[in-house]
Amino acid sequence: MSTIPYKIYLEESEMPKYWYNLRADMKKKPAPLLNPGTHQPMTPAELSGVFCDELVKQELDNDTREYPIPEEILSFYRMYRPSPLVRAYCLEEKLKTPAKIYYKFEGNNTSGSHKLNSAVAQAYYAKKQGLKGVTTETGAGQWGTALSMACSYFGLDCKVYMVKVSYEQKPFRREVMRVYGASVTPSPSDTTQVGRKILAEHPGTTGSLGCAISEAVEVAVSNPGYRYVLGSVLNQVLLHQSVIGVETKIAMDKYGIKPDIIIGCAGGGSNLGGLIAPFMGEKLRGEADYRIIAVEPASCPSLTRGVYAYDFCDTGMVCPLAKMYTLGSDFIPAPNHAGGLRYHGMSPILSELYDQGMLEAVSVPQTSVFDAAETFARVEGILPAPESSHAIKVALDEAIKCRETGEEKTIVFGLTGTGYFDLVAYEKYHNGQMDDYIPTDEELARFAAKLPKI
Amino acid sequence: MSTIPYKIYLEESEMPKYWYNLRADMKKKPAPLLNPGTHQPMTPAELSGVFCDELVKQELDNDTREYPIPEEILSFYRMYRPSPLVRAYCLEEKLKTPAKIYYKFEGNNTSGSHKLNSAVAQAYYAKKQGLKGVTTETGAGQWGTALSMACSYFGLDCKVYMVKVSYEQKPFRREVMRVYGASVTPSPSDTTQVGRKILAEHPGTTGSLGCAISEAVEVAVSNPGYRYVLGSVLNQVLLHQSVIGVETKIAMDKYGIKPDIIIGCAGGGSNLGGLIAPFMGEKLRGEADYRIIAVEPASCPSLTRGVYAYDFCDTGMVCPLAKMYTLGSDFIPAPNHAGGLRYHGMSPILSELYDQGMLEAVSVPQTSVFDAAETFARVEGILPAPESSHAIKVALDEAIKCRETGEEKTIVFGLTGTGYFDLVAYEKYHNGQMDDYIPTDEELARFAAKLPKI
Repeated sequence: MSTIPYKIYLEESEMPKYWYNLRADMKKKPAPLLNPGTHQPMTPAELSGVFCDELVKQELDNDTREYPIPEEILSFYRMYRPSPLVRAYCLEEKLKTPAKIYYKFEGNNTSGSHKLNSAVAQAYYAKKQGLKGVTTETGAGQWGTALSMACSYFGLDCKVYMVKVSYEQKPFRREVMRVYGASVTPSPSDTTQVGRKILAEHPGTTGSLGCAISEAVEVAVSNPGYRYVLGSVLNQVLLHQSVIGVETKIAMDKYGIKPDIIIGCAGGGSNLGGLIAPFMGEKLRGEADYRIIAVEPASCPSLTRGVYAYDFCDTGMVCPLAKMYTLGSDFIPAPNHAGGLRYHGMSPILSELYDQGMLEAVSVPQTSVFDAAETFARVEGILPAPESSHAIKVALDEAIKCRETGEEKTIVFGLTGTGYFDLVAYEKYHNGQMDDYIPTDEELARFAAKLPKI
Repeated sequence: MSTIPYKIYLEESEMPKYWYNLRADMKKKPAPLLNPGTHQPMTPAELSGVFCDELVKQELDNDTREYPIPEEILSFYRMYRPSPLVRAYCLEEKLKTPAKIYYKFEGNNTSGSHKLNSAVAQAYYAKKQGLKGVTTETGAGQWGTALSMACSYFGLDCKVYMVKVSYEQKPFRREVMRVYGASVTPSPSDTTQVGRKILAEHPGTTGSLGCAISEAVEVAVSNPGYRYVLGSVLNQVLLHQSVIGVETKIAMDKYGIKPDIIIGCAGGGSNLGGLIAPFMGEKLRGEADYRIIAVEPASCPSLTRGVYAYDFCDTGMVCPLAKMYTLGSDFIPAPNHAGGLRYHGMSPILSELYDQGMLEAVSVPQTSVFDAAETFARVEGILPAPESSHAIKVALDEAIKCRETGEEKTIVFGLTGTGYFDLVAYEKYHNGQMDDYIPTDEELARFAAKLPKI
């Protein structure tokens, strides 16, 4: 038995006091957001109609290395943080690997994932600016739940547009949002112009994320005192999520642990960008080297098979253009895809780092992801979210390689959340109703051909 | 800001190494289990056909004060323990109370509750005895999930009989059990004699807990290498659950915190008995005094309105007779009751202590419980299980009294679990479909008249 405990919980006094802005250490910065009409870089004034002022500043700030975390946010963080850095002793024993496996577990809060780290920051700045409320869209409801919790804490109104099919078929996260006082509207709805238009054209539609975004943005820009917020992709979100990585690094430094491989799942990039931030910083500054691996679903392979180009962040094409690895803004994974991470693009910061060769990416089929999830659950006790299980899958692969080579590598991965609301997917898996459809090159080319010409 | 952190996590080296057997400090012991045929105290030989040998010893041992926790169980505990002792700063601020409120949160594991503490012990002793597997019944699935996790860890077969209506209407915990490799059978089933008999007599039945117990016991006693296990009520279960209280006391002593009031919800008594164990021990030995409050649902009020008498532990009347506060073994709460804690009786240990005046009991209507749950969730961030929310309700009441009197009392309550699988109940609450039916005196008298004559 090593002297390293099963779970490392930092003392409150050791918790991070600042967010780390990775962009400050990038020589080549991520490309700026562009105005979709003029194709010119978005100005702070343009962005401040959609986002609140402090978040616009954070979004555009490529230079400030450290942002002190406001006391009110630290206070909220202390409600559910520090999250544990877990030494996966049981998993190592099961795999008979000489590798040392760690995971940073972000699921021990009611939103069930790391999303809360940014939700509380975005709600706080909205409140500080004197706003009445925020609007957002949600699919299965993970981000909407996190935002509801944060808004409830700060006494802010929270309007969530939830894709209608999820609203009806996945009522549980909707109820959690209602516990936190959010208004949850199935989208498309008759509460917005764009919603009414879509309902008139497609009376039986069950909605889409693109439509929900359009409704949420319309409500934000047309109601005084409201702004729109987003749970991933944006630079500001990665800044807030750096709390994951900074906390991980403090815990590792405390126990003298040095990772060889850092693994995270990647949808829009919020978790991966947060987890790797301080490690990537060292790598960018030439102070250390790490293998950093982004894991994405084979059915939505933006880094491994996408194009690095300017594209819309939303299917509705109302948001600014971002330069990123993308499959095209109207790409939607096959309907049988149950594993989350369905975003067509990738954080501009991570996209630029990937383009620079600073991180690797792999894509994995979903059945192998659920196999890994079940192996993990049985020995480590935690039922992982399908999203998180992408990272588990590659961590297992790397640990098994170590068994074969005898190398005692130190592997750390991000366990972003729990799977309590994903049991329909687990049921499909148990019943053999899950398949591994992977888009063909022709399909991907068809979507890529529709990218805006910049 | 006090110097007490939001969350107290013990170091691994500070975690309890023993379970505390409250019975050792009781001058008047709980009454023995009786053979339902002979009405004589159950012998170890009789019990060992149903329970494994070490658990029989623990069940009957009124004298040993401390049981060292085997290293294999400590190792499993380290996967999800220590659980945090949380200082509810946000709740105190919300209530504007001078009271200091703490809660011991047992929900940060995939079973979602404290049940895992005893499940792992029962699975371990079954494995150590060389058994092949265990059987049990489950209603909504909380105990079944905990047992599945424990059996998976020790490589033990786990057969769960799940009440058919829950199996069909609440498929999610069933899927979690399948993740852990348990076989889950809807009850009544054609896999047992008693199941086939019931199906023949009542072809359309949706099952009951009593029937599921009968099937699980039949399978255990008729298959070599199997034993039956139970998640509450029994003395052995309270012994294992003492880890909650011992851990709470170590954390409180470390920070010099002395509780005035200790509150726990009470269904079969496993959580309450565990939480209060070391505190009640001090009280029994005359070393300290605490107000200890058991909170039960008004719709299933065994302590507050039941009879202290010998009764069957199960509806099927196959298990030994226990002396306890009971409503009668075929009492079932009204169908609209959504708040858990539906057991007709109460742990014999707690029943005896209540009879001795060592603890108080109150019953609360379920709408007030969900009101308390929502208040708590909004400021403390955790979505509580309805069961746990009974304790929250009374903690709020006591804290509000302190606001009125200005007393700075220290209140600690048990937050036994999370409500992620209880959202149908929350939905009823939000939609105003919940009522507060309370059984009449006449109804209770009718069930009490059927108690066995001992």
